[in-house]
Amino acid sequence: MNFLEERIVKDGVVKEGNVLKVDSFLNHQMDIKLLDQMGAEFRRRFAGRPINKILTIEASGIGIACVAAQHFDVPVVFAKKSQSINLDGEMYVAEVESFTHKCVNHVIVAKKFLNPDDHVLIIDDFLANGCALQGLIQIVQSAGATVEGIGIAIEKGFQSGGRIIRNLGFQLESLAIVDGMNAETGEIKFRDQSKMAAGSGCIEPKDGEICRSSTLD
Amino acid sequence: MNFLEERIVKDGVVKEGNVLKVDSFLNHQMDIKLLDQMGAEFRRRFAGRPINKILTIEASGIGIACVAAQHFDVPVVFAKKSQSINLDGEMYVAEVESFTHKCVNHVIVAKKFLNPDDHVLIIDDFLANGCALQGLIQIVQSAGATVEGIGIAIEKGFQSGGRIIRNLGFQLESLAIVDGMNAETGEIKFRDQSKMAAGSGCIEPKDGEICRSSTLD
Repeated sequence: MNFLEERIVKDGVVKEGNVLKVDSFLNHQMDIKLLDQMGAEFRRRFAGRPINKILTIEASGIGIACVAAQHFDVPVVFAKKSQSINLDGEMYVAEVESFTHKCVNHVIVAKKFLNPDDHVLIIDDFLANGCALQGLIQIVQSAGATVEGIGIAIEKGFQSGGRIIRNLGFQLESLAIVDGMNAETGEIKFRDQSKMAAGSGCIEPKDGEICRSSTLD
Repeated sequence: MNFLEERIVKDGVVKEGNVLKVDSFLNHQMDIKLLDQMGAEFRRRFAGRPINKILTIEASGIGIACVAAQHFDVPVVFAKKSQSINLDGEMYVAEVESFTHKCVNHVIVAKKFLNPDDHVLIIDDFLANGCALQGLIQIVQSAGATVEGIGIAIEKGFQSGGRIIRNLGFQLESLAIVDGMNAETGEIKFRDQSKMAAGSGCIEPKDGEICRSSTLD
């Protein structure tokens, strides 16, 4: 187990409905030393990539992104989430429709903060069905910028987001991939990432796990 | 001028209605080196205070708080904002009513992350009427914890929040205090903080600038 998997086993709490609570160290209270270790590990995994900007999404991605940014020596841009928007032409807006949550959200970035010269590392805390992440990718591409990679703290490997994004050819690095959880025993099963290159089973998206996203102009 | 005031003059944009846009370096795109300088300055201003936790509020406070936390070697807790809440007894909730914006917001922190042993530094990006900040102070006090200080990036000195909070006896340190702005010329007038101990004019809250907050149980 790596340092994040160890911490999840120590302080994470498994709840009914495949919910993993990590609010004591990652997304409500934040252990800054852990975030710093995560930043160093992202730097290692994306070594050689010409990253000049980190993009994340409010709220819990911001802390991880800002601490990681110190390892890359780049600025951070955070996308805003909103259910209603005024399209004023100065914003990139991705409309993200979640069939799981049965709602439409907008992911918004001011146009002036992304341009074709940008080589972007996207960072977020969780990846499940990947709806928000797909919105971020679209926004980077709308700007003519390059997605150099995607760094995630915890991926729910039993949902389809990670598979879809890897199939699209992106370098997606999740520091911990949870393949299964048991709320009764508290047991958490992590994917052995050393075997991932050889393929570790295809996951087909299930109904209710898909999201659709599109950019607005 | 200090480093933050210089940066505001260089990259801030004054808009009609006393709006100061600092989204290119502070609250949409974030200059991480600047945040690090701010963290070091907060450390200097709160030297000797037995701070063991930083409390901030989503979203734009989080980056500043996380980078500052590295200078204090403490964890960060961020409060969540919500217009609707389920009171489940495990949360501290401050109801913050803004007469300016004519709405009620809830500021929420899980009870398990604040306790009577905590000595808290509150950090946020902006202070104007201080409504959200008053909610955070209340939550710390509800937990029986101690507010050791309040660190703000930019205070709008012509609004009443800063005066009210200083009058309550808190050590409030704003790295830049804007006493006036001119949208036509772009001019920004900063308060000379070296004279603050001697008093620099009382500001009475005007109608529409007051907020009322209360904790819920």
